[in-house]
Amino acid sequence: MSGNTFGTLFSVTTFGESHGPAMGCIVDGCPAGLPLKLEDISRELKRRRPGVGEASTTRTEADEPELLSGVFEDKTLGTPIAIIIRNTDQCSKDYDELRDVYRPGHADWTWEAKFGWRDHRGGGRSSGRETVGRVAAGAIAKVLLAQHGITIHAWPSSIAGMPVPGMKDPDFSFEEAEKNTLHVPHKERAEQIKEKIEQLRDEGDSAGGVISCIAEGVPPGLGEPVFGKLDACLAAAMLSLGATKGIEFGSGFASSSSKGANQNDKPVIYRKIEPYPNLPPDVPSLRYRSNNAGGMLGGISTGMPIEFKVAFKPVPSIRKTQTTLDREGLLCDLILEGRHDVCIVPRAVPVVEAMTALVLADLLLLSLGNRL
Amino acid sequence: MSGNTFGTLFSVTTFGESHGPAMGCIVDGCPAGLPLKLEDISRELKRRRPGVGEASTTRTEADEPELLSGVFEDKTLGTPIAIIIRNTDQCSKDYDELRDVYRPGHADWTWEAKFGWRDHRGGGRSSGRETVGRVAAGAIAKVLLAQHGITIHAWPSSIAGMPVPGMKDPDFSFEEAEKNTLHVPHKERAEQIKEKIEQLRDEGDSAGGVISCIAEGVPPGLGEPVFGKLDACLAAAMLSLGATKGIEFGSGFASSSSKGANQNDKPVIYRKIEPYPNLPPDVPSLRYRSNNAGGMLGGISTGMPIEFKVAFKPVPSIRKTQTTLDREGLLCDLILEGRHDVCIVPRAVPVVEAMTALVLADLLLLSLGNRL
Amino acid sequence: MSGNTFGTLFSVTTFGESHGPAMGCIVDGCPAGLPLKLEDISRELKRRRPGVGEASTTRTEADEPELLSGVFEDKTLGTPIAIIIRNTDQCSKDYDELRDVYRPGHADWTWEAKFGWRDHRGGGRSSGRETVGRVAAGAIAKVLLAQHGITIHAWPSSIAGMPVPGMKDPDFSFEEAEKNTLHVPHKERAEQIKEKIEQLRDEGDSAGGVISCIAEGVPPGLGEPVFGKLDACLAAAMLSLGATKGIEFGSGFASSSSKGANQNDKPVIYRKIEPYPNLPPDVPSLRYRSNNAGGMLGGISTGMPIEFKVAFKPVPSIRKTQTTLDREGLLCDLILEGRHDVCIVPRAVPVVEAMTALVLADLLLLSLGNRL
Amino acid sequence: MSGNTFGTLFSVTTFGESHGPAMGCIVDGCPAGLPLKLEDISRELKRRRPGVGEASTTRTEADEPELLSGVFEDKTLGTPIAIIIRNTDQCSKDYDELRDVYRPGHADWTWEAKFGWRDHRGGGRSSGRETVGRVAAGAIAKVLLAQHGITIHAWPSSIAGMPVPGMKDPDFSFEEAEKNTLHVPHKERAEQIKEKIEQLRDEGDSAGGVISCIAEGVPPGLGEPVFGKLDACLAAAMLSLGATKGIEFGSGFASSSSKGANQNDKPVIYRKIEPYPNLPPDVPSLRYRSNNAGGMLGGISTGMPIEFKVAFKPVPSIRKTQTTLDREGLLCDLILEGRHDVCIVPRAVPVVEAMTALVLADLLLLSLGNRL
Repeated sequence: MSGNTFGTLFSVTTFGESHGPAMGCIVDGCPAGLPLKLEDISRELKRRRPGVGEASTTRTEADEPELLSGVFEDKTLGTPIAIIIRNTDQCSKDYDELRDVYRPGHADWTWEAKFGWRDHRGGGRSSGRETVGRVAAGAIAKVLLAQHGITIHAWPSSIAGMPVPGMKDPDFSFEEAEKNTLHVPHKERAEQIKEKIEQLRDEGDSAGGVISCIAEGVPPGLGEPVFGKLDACLAAAMLSLGATKGIEFGSGFASSSSKGANQNDKPVIYRKIEPYPNLPPDVPSLRYRSNNAGGMLGGISTGMPIEFKVAFKPVPSIRKTQTTLDREGLLCDLILEGRHDVCIVPRAVPVVEAMTALVLADLLLLSLGNRL
Repeated sequence: MSGNTFGTLFSVTTFGESHGPAMGCIVDGCPAGLPLKLEDISRELKRRRPGVGEASTTRTEADEPELLSGVFEDKTLGTPIAIIIRNTDQCSKDYDELRDVYRPGHADWTWEAKFGWRDHRGGGRSSGRETVGRVAAGAIAKVLLAQHGITIHAWPSSIAGMPVPGMKDPDFSFEEAEKNTLHVPHKERAEQIKEKIEQLRDEGDSAGGVISCIAEGVPPGLGEPVFGKLDACLAAAMLSLGATKGIEFGSGFASSSSKGANQNDKPVIYRKIEPYPNLPPDVPSLRYRSNNAGGMLGGISTGMPIEFKVAFKPVPSIRKTQTTLDREGLLCDLILEGRHDVCIVPRAVPVVEAMTALVLADLLLLSLGNRL
Repeated sequence: MSGNTFGTLFSVTTFGESHGPAMGCIVDGCPAGLPLKLEDISRELKRRRPGVGEASTTRTEADEPELLSGVFEDKTLGTPIAIIIRNTDQCSKDYDELRDVYRPGHADWTWEAKFGWRDHRGGGRSSGRETVGRVAAGAIAKVLLAQHGITIHAWPSSIAGMPVPGMKDPDFSFEEAEKNTLHVPHKERAEQIKEKIEQLRDEGDSAGGVISCIAEGVPPGLGEPVFGKLDACLAAAMLSLGATKGIEFGSGFASSSSKGANQNDKPVIYRKIEPYPNLPPDVPSLRYRSNNAGGMLGGISTGMPIEFKVAFKPVPSIRKTQTTLDREGLLCDLILEGRHDVCIVPRAVPVVEAMTALVLADLLLLSLGNRL
Repeated sequence: MSGNTFGTLFSVTTFGESHGPAMGCIVDGCPAGLPLKLEDISRELKRRRPGVGEASTTRTEADEPELLSGVFEDKTLGTPIAIIIRNTDQCSKDYDELRDVYRPGHADWTWEAKFGWRDHRGGGRSSGRETVGRVAAGAIAKVLLAQHGITIHAWPSSIAGMPVPGMKDPDFSFEEAEKNTLHVPHKERAEQIKEKIEQLRDEGDSAGGVISCIAEGVPPGLGEPVFGKLDACLAAAMLSLGATKGIEFGSGFASSSSKGANQNDKPVIYRKIEPYPNLPPDVPSLRYRSNNAGGMLGGISTGMPIEFKVAFKPVPSIRKTQTTLDREGLLCDLILEGRHDVCIVPRAVPVVEAMTALVLADLLLLSLGNRL
C-alpha cells in the first residue's frame, strides 16, 4: 500500500518523472546467486518502448537501462538492484501550456489537490512512462520465476471493442504477438484492429481494451491468506496501473450469475502427470478438470494456470477539442498537441506481465516460511 | 501484502478460526480522542450475522463483541483496539467427515498444499466467518470517517443473475435495504430474489451476485501514487474477500470498448457548492459533470463519489452430491451437511462497506503528510 | 518502526492497558506444524509474574494465558496466534489521584503531549505490564528456535550498582537464577543484592541494573544488511522496553578505547567441531578464537554466541515525596501509594529473552530467501 | 527492519557496492513543497568525504550527487527523490587478493555465510561507503526538520580513549568542529588526538571512539509506543551503522547504578518560555530541570534535547600482519594494502546526524495522525 514500493520480500520501488532526468527502480530482496544480464532487462524494456507501433506515441526513447548495483560478474549479490533509464527525448516545451490547465481524464487536478503542485511536463510521475521501472523490475522477477519453471504471457484480448480470438483458436499464437506492434496474438485480427486504430487516430479519438494474462507453472501454495491472497495481490498490482478500470479472475463477473454446481472445478488426480515437487508429505497432487477458479482457491494458487483479465479505459489524451478548467477555475478550450498513444493496451502488455511476475516472485519468497 | 494485516497507518489484523475459541481483530493507528462505543461495533456485526436471512446458514451466533483495549471512558486512546467475538454455536462434529476430504470450490486442498495441514472444522480460517473481525474493525473506521463527513453504502446490485434497479430508480432505497434480509434496496426485487433463492435451496444449489458500493463525501486527494492508488487499495481489499472474482470502478469493463471522448469526465466549477475545505491554496474546487472515473483519477480521489462493483461467485458449498478427492487421493462422493448460505452476497454487504471504510481511513491518515 | 507491531515475517502485535480488561498479543507468521502447548506460554509468563520476589510489586496476577486462535490439536496452523491475559487484580482506585498529575520519570505527560489524553490507571499502556504480551509471543518464538537448536539466557549482571560475577565464575549457574526471585545466577550475590533492595525499599527509593543476554546455537548468516542488521534489530527490541537506557554488544563501549589489533577476533577452524549445516557450498565453517564482536560482524551472525548487555534505569515510582506538576500546570507534592517494584530488572529477564527470541525467529525466517 | 529501507513514512532505501558503478538512495514520503537544492545534499556529503582528514583513507571521491527525480524547480514534488553518487576512484585491483580471504573484524565471511558469495572489492555493500546514501537522504530530512526548528549536532566525544571536553567546556564549539578534519569541537584536544592517530598510523593500528549527538528543538510527542519508541528507532538507526557496538541515552549505563530519586527529572513550567505550539488543548507546557532522560520518557520526546552516545569499535583494517583464513579453510598471513581510515569516527559524525534526522523526520510525519 506504500506509495512507491510494491512487495514485501521481493520488492520494487520505482522513481522518476516523465520529463525529469531519469526513471528507474530498485529491486530489493532478490536472492543472491541469480544469473542476470543487462540484456534480460533491456529485452523487456524494448517490448514496451514507445514509437514502435501504430497505436503508439511518436516519442522515441532508447530506454537503455543502466545497472548501478546489486549485480556483480553477471550474478545477483542479494543486495538492492538499482536500475536507471535516462529520459532522452523530452520535448518539455510541448507541455508549457499545460502548466495551469487540468486535462480531462488525467490526474492533473487530483495531483494538485493532493500535493499542492505538480510537475506538469508529460504528466510528471503520473505518466505511463513510470512503468519502465516496473518493467525493468519485472524482468528480474521473470528470471527468478523461470528458474522455478514459471512463465507469464499477457495479450490484448480486446481492443476498441474488438475481441481477439482466445487461446483455443487455431490461429492464436504468442509468437505472432511478439511480431506485430499491437502484441495481438492473432494475425488477422491484428490487421483489423490496426485499421480501427488508424480510424480513431484520424478522428482524434482514442481506444481502450482488455488484457488477458496467464501464468503457467505456478506451484500450489502461493498466496498469503487472508489479506495477501494471490488474487488480492494481483488486483492491487493491476489497479496500480494507470487507466485500468477493473480486473476479473477465472470466470470472473460471469460467475456471479452462475450456480455453484456449475462453478465448482472438480479435483482429479492424473496418474500420468508427475506430482508437485513442493507439496508437503501426505498431500496428494490434485489437478482440476476445469479452471473457473482462475488458478486460485481461497486466494492460494491451485497449481492450475493463473488467469485474469484487466480492463483499460481509452487513453484520455485525445486530439479533439475539449472544454476544461484552468488553475484560475476558468473554462478554456484544450487542444492537446504533444505525442500520445491512441491506445495504450499494446504497450501495457509487458507491464501486466511485469506486475504479475513481481507478485509471484514475492509470494514465492513469502511461501518459504509457511511451514516447518 | 501481509497475510493477516491490512493497512499502513490505520491497520487491522484479524485472527481466528471458524470453530476455534474466538474470532477478532486489532485495529492499530486509530487516532486518539475518537468517541467510540461498543454499540458502534455490535450494530455492524448484527448486519452480517448469520441466521437472519432466507439466503443464509442456520448457524446462529450472538456475535457479541468484547472490547479488550484501546478505548477508555468511551473514547479511543490511540493504542491498539483489540476486539474479540466468541464462537458459540460450533457444531464441530458436523465437520468430522471433512477432515480428510477436499471440498470442491473451497480452499481445503490449497490450504494443505501451503501449510501442510489445516483446521478442517468449518473451513478454519478460510471460513467467511473470518470477516467478523473485518466488520468490527470497519465499524471503527466508519466512526472515524463519519467525523469527516464520509458515508459508505453497499448493496447487492445483482443476485443469481437477477439485476437490482439502480440508484436512480424511484423505488431504490437504502432504508429498504436495511429492512429486508437480503439487503436489497428495492422491495419488489427483493421479493423476487427471495423466491429465486428458495428455489435454489430446494435444488440444493447456490447463487452468486454483484455488490455495488458508493462512498460519498470523500475529499479529493486520497490515494497514494503509484502503487497505493485508491483503486489499487480497494481492489486489494475486495479481492481479499473469499468468493470474490472481480472488481470494476466507475464505467469499468464497459469503458474498455468506449472512446476517450466519451469517457473523459468534464471538470466544472459549481459556484453554488462550497469549495473543498482540504484543498491547498490556489487549487480550485473542481467537480465533474459525470463520474465514469468512479471518483478517482490517477488513483487519487476526485471528490466525486467513489463507485465500484464486486463480483461474487456462487457459494461452493452445495447440497448436491459432488465427486471429489480425499487425502489418500481417492475419489469419493461428497454430500455436505452442515449449515450453508445459499448466497453469501447479502451478508457480504457490510463486509464490503467495512473494507471500504478501512481503505479510506488508512488513506485519510496517509494523506496528512502529503505536503508541507 | 510501527507502534505496536514488531517483526517482519515472524511478527508480534501487543495490545492492552494495565487496568483495561485484558493484555495480549497476536503472533503472525509462525510456520505451520510447530508443536505448541499452552504450558509453553504460561511457563514463561510465570517467570515475569509480579508478586514473586523481594524486588517486586505486591500486585498479584494469575497471568493465565488463553489461546484464541492459530493452534489446533497442539500444533500451529500457520495462522495468527492470538493470546489474551485477563487483568484481574486491578486496584484502579489507587490511581484516581493520578488522573491529573504527571509522575516524574514516567510517560504520563509525554503520552498526553502525544495523544491528548491517557488512561491514567497504572500507566495505561505505558505500564511494564504491556510486556506480558511480549513474553507470551517470545515463548512461541523460543519453541521455534529450540527446533533449530537455539537457546537464550538472560540474567541480571548488575543490580543497584552491585555487579554479579560472570559466566566464568564457578558459582555462576542458570539453575540458581531460576530458583531465586531476583533471577540472579549467583547464590551469594543474590543474597547480598536482596539486602540492598530491602534497604532501598525502606528508604522509599529504587534501583536499576544491567541485564546480560546470551543466545547460543545461532547459525551464521542471520541479520539483514544494511538496516536490518542483527544488532540493529536487537537494539530496537531492547530499547523498546520501558526504562532501558542503553545497549552494548560484545566488548561494547570498552571497544571504543581499544585498538584494532586487540579487537579483531581471529578466525579459526576447529577440525573437531562439525561444520555448520546451513552454510552454502564452498564456504568453510569458521569459528573465532574470541568474541569481542558479540557474535555478529557487519550485522550478520557469526555462529558465535550472541552477547549483549542492556542498561535499565531505576524504577521511577518511589515512595519518597516528590514535587511535580498537575494538569493545571501547578506544583504539587506527590506521594505514590500503589504497588511498585523497587527494581524491575529481575522481572525484565524473561522479557529480554522474549524480545531476543522474537528478533532471532524473524531473522531466521527472513534468511530463508537470501540465496537461490 | 527491512534490509535496505529505513523508515515508515519518511523512508530511505540505499543501494550500491563500494566498487560498483554508483551508490545512492531513494527518499520516499518527503512532503511536497519543500524547498530543496542540490547544494543542500552536496554540502553534507562533503562533510563525510574521504581524503580530507588525518584519520582518513587516501581514497578520493568527488561524491557529487545527482538528483534524478522528486524535485522540480527546486521544490519537492511529494514523489520519490532518487539520488546517485558515482564511484569514481576505484582501485579495484587492490582488492583482488581479498577475493578468497576473510579479513578479521570484517563482514567478509558472514556475508558469504548468508548470501553464498560477495563482491569482495572494498567490502562491497558492507563498506562504510554505503553511508553516502544515508547522508544524502539525511540532508533532505535535515531541511525538513529545519522548517520545524529542529537542529542536530554530533561530534566525537572520545577518540582512541581520549575524551573530548563536553558542551559546558568554554572551548567547546561546533564551529571549531567543522574546521578541523576530526570534527572535534575542541581545538586543543583535536590537536592531541591528531597526534595520537598519527602514532597509531605509524604502528599500523587503528582507533575507535564515541560519538555524542544532540537534537534540539524537537517538539514533545514524537515516538510511537510501544515498539516504535524514539529511543528504539534511534538505537536501530545507530546500530545499523557498521562498527557501532553500543548506544546509550541520557544518563545511560551510569543510570543503572543510580537511585530513582536521583534519576527522575523534575518537571517545571518556565513562565518566560513560550508554550509548545503543537500541544493538545489543556496540556501544560512542561520543561524539566535536568535531562537524565535524554529527552524522552516512555519512548516519546519530552521537548528537552535528545541526547545519546554511540560507541564505535576500532577500524578492523590494520596494516599489521594478521593471521586469518581463506576460502579453502587454510590459514594465511594477511597484510592489508588498500586505503583505510585509522579512525572512522570523524567521518561518522555526519552519518550519525543523518540517521538522527531520518528518525526524527519519520516520527514527525507519523505523529500527524496521533489524535483527532
